Amino acid sequence: MKAAVLHEPYDVRFEERPDPKIEQPTDAIIRMSATCVCGSDLWPYRGAQPIEGPTPMGHEYCGVVEEVGSAVKSVKPGQFVIGGFAYSDNSCPNCKAGYQSRCMHGGFFNTAQAPFLRVPLADGTLIATSDKPDAKMIPSLLTVSDVLATGWFAADAANVQPGKTAVVVGDGAVGLLAVLSAKLKGAERIVAMSRHKARQDLARIFGATDIVEERGEEGVARIKEMTKGVGADCVLECVGTQQSMHQALGATRQGGYMSYVGVPHGVSLDGLQIFFTHVHLHGGPAPVRRFLPSLIERVESGRVDPGQVFDMKIPLDQVAEGYRAMDERRAIKALLQP
Amino acid sequence: MKAAVLHEPYDVRFEERPDPKIEQPTDAIIRMSATCVCGSDLWPYRGAQPIEGPTPMGHEYCGVVEEVGSAVKSVKPGQFVIGGFAYSDNSCPNCKAGYQSRCMHGGFFNTAQAPFLRVPLADGTLIATSDKPDAKMIPSLLTVSDVLATGWFAADAANVQPGKTAVVVGDGAVGLLAVLSAKLKGAERIVAMSRHKARQDLARIFGATDIVEERGEEGVARIKEMTKGVGADCVLECVGTQQSMHQALGATRQGGYMSYVGVPHGVSLDGLQIFFTHVHLHGGPAPVRRFLPSLIERVESGRVDPGQVFDMKIPLDQVAEGYRAMDERRAIKALLQP
Repeated sequence: MKAAVLHEPYDVRFEERPDPKIEQPTDAIIRMSATCVCGSDLWPYRGAQPIEGPTPMGHEYCGVVEEVGSAVKSVKPGQFVIGGFAYSDNSCPNCKAGYQSRCMHGGFFNTAQAPFLRVPLADGTLIATSDKPDAKMIPSLLTVSDVLATGWFAADAANVQPGKTAVVVGDGAVGLLAVLSAKLKGAERIVAMSRHKARQDLARIFGATDIVEERGEEGVARIKEMTKGVGADCVLECVGTQQSMHQALGATRQGGYMSYVGVPHGVSLDGLQIFFTHVHLHGGPAPVRRFLPSLIERVESGRVDPGQVFDMKIPLDQVAEGYRAMDERRAIKALLQP
Repeated sequence: MKAAVLHEPYDVRFEERPDPKIEQPTDAIIRMSATCVCGSDLWPYRGAQPIEGPTPMGHEYCGVVEEVGSAVKSVKPGQFVIGGFAYSDNSCPNCKAGYQSRCMHGGFFNTAQAPFLRVPLADGTLIATSDKPDAKMIPSLLTVSDVLATGWFAADAANVQPGKTAVVVGDGAVGLLAVLSAKLKGAERIVAMSRHKARQDLARIFGATDIVEERGEEGVARIKEMTKGVGADCVLECVGTQQSMHQALGATRQGGYMSYVGVPHGVSLDGLQIFFTHVHLHGGPAPVRRFLPSLIERVESGRVDPGQVFDMKIPLDQVAEGYRAMDERRAIKALLQP
């Protein structure tokens, strides 16, 4: 098969790779219906995260089961399935505590920008949809594999509840779906921090009640002003830089909740600041598996349409253009069809 | 009156200071029954926190109301009262959220190692006991002003619940009372990290089921071993150094809870570490006022005896010896009687 491989910064190639095969009895092979480029793929693409030689890419996927190993019980060939960006046995102590993205026997996918994918620990990783979905529902189902589940975790970890004020830092696909998640969880006021018109518009469609264009200290001052000097109950950090973390911390009220779901790059938190602001902190790689059943159900019901984050849909063999468009912020998120 | 004043590192004097007076209608003056030296007083005492000239000291207190301003309604002269190390109006948005130690109109006490104390915002700060307490109950009531409430907040912020495993980092008065608090909250297993015999013994009296003497990476390895490689559900950090914070983080299970209640000195948290461990973080200066009524009730019931942390009781005029004994770790905590 041909699949995406990053050779060096800004050099993604669509080239020959071995076909995946069942290696363990707990494996499944799926035929990709759609995959995509993630904001986190841009870190190595931009050279901000080193790679050692040619590196296959991709960790978001949904598709049809092609083959299963002898021990797989919960999914079977022909079913349409979705799994998170991490695989898990869903039974170790970490999984049982709801943190399947740090399963003691699991790991992260990195070969999903391809027509076929081997899924280890299929029973603990994949969930089948109730029916074979319509083609037009596939983008929304694909978001459950990462960006919707990550936005949902951001809202969950920031304790978003009915009546609360939620601020979302970051207007990438995760930030936008964090807005949608905050809306679904009943937040009364949802502030999207964004200075891009198209993203602001989508944030409003997803439920943002306010847009703040200022950043850094100015952004913090604006949030304080909007909350009578108190700060926001819930702040969802969806970027992962020192500046965005600092901005999120500053916007949180005394004793409020701040979550972080973007892989941190060069971030450290000052002990005195987190001490004297009494902020509750929680985040990490989203435990997609915990939220997979309920999010798939929401998408299948047709009540939500998170697939709107894909403002670019291209054939898989044009994957390099997907990276370029996202790097240049011409696209929010690029969907790839084999 | 004569009171404690820190002139420079290791130089505490008991010297003439102005008698406190009612300055605002919301003030109360209390006649001190007992005060004490805090572990946090040792930071400036040791020169680890700069002072600007002679500085009065002390923030833990209980005593009898001597006089109240015209606006004070909830306490009256003759009543025995306790308040936390911070004063608060108990009505601003921060107070209403339960974070009275960061009241928008409040502040911190720093003149309590004295025979009299002015308490601003008395209605929002002080709680009267139901009766005038016996002399032997006074040490336990005094702990509610800071160390018991701080230990309690450590347990609360680390989500200690029945059946959980709690690890306490730090064997000062706060750490020991964090052990007691974890016990009162129903923790099944309570590990005190301490290498001092007298403190280990008191930790066991307060409810510790295990003692770990190792520190740093070795301490973390020991906790992991005791929890089958998983780590502890709840870790209560009661020191405030980079080493102790690091040790606490390392001992927490994936998705577990870590609290911190010691003022951090030179602490920063690594973004990647807190991200990939999914730890819940919460802490800060304990909102004593939130816990004051229930903790006073527990002490008055006679079911708990947190006053055992005072292994030194001296007259107030010997305050300098109290500092010396705590600095040299000859005493866990020194009670001062005017």
